[in-house]
Amino acid sequence: MSKFGMYAKFTAKPGEREALAAILLEAAAAAEPVQECELYIVNLSESEADILWVTEVWSSAEAHAASLALEATRATIQRAMPLIAGVEPVKLIPVGGKGLAFGSTAP
Amino acid sequence: MSKFGMYAKFTAKPGEREALAAILLEAAAAAEPVQECELYIVNLSESEADILWVTEVWSSAEAHAASLALEATRATIQRAMPLIAGVEPVKLIPVGGKGLAFGSTAP
Repeated sequence: MSKFGMYAKFTAKPGEREALAAILLEAAAAAEPVQECELYIVNLSESEADILWVTEVWSSAEAHAASLALEATRATIQRAMPLIAGVEPVKLIPVGGKGLAFGSTAP
Repeated sequence: MSKFGMYAKFTAKPGEREALAAILLEAAAAAEPVQECELYIVNLSESEADILWVTEVWSSAEAHAASLALEATRATIQRAMPLIAGVEPVKLIPVGGKGLAFGSTAP
């Protein structure tokens, strides 16, 4: 089964990027014990003041979808919503590289 | 010192995405022993047939810049160039999350 990857581009409301980053870092901490979540990195855009990107890799698209249905995830999203002007996902199929374990089977 | 992150969006020439992915996976393998390279993941776009994204995290912007100056990197870029229609970098400051080691100092 292919891994599932996503770059989630968050546009924070003006002045709210730091507060939004703090909530996303809490979400990352909550994902620490979740084996199916392989990567959840919070990034600031180097050039755009209101932009945050989250780099996610999950063991499968199903594992990602299941995480969105969890009560804890939904509560976090509710807290973050007032800080967010927009979200744009870039969906990816990770095929290999350094920093994650990839099996020998084709994606 | 802050880590350096980048999403590099490659547009392959028509029909060349698979060949380009193979070269990028070779670059990832070459980065395995490079301690300053913390992440180098090759991803296919889920929705766009000619698009590849590489997720990179380096220990610093300087470490990334130094890698680009290496002869092996330049040779790989030369081999990849005929397959590439365009490259767009998204530069990032990774601040925390799951899957990488982050120090306790602020970015």
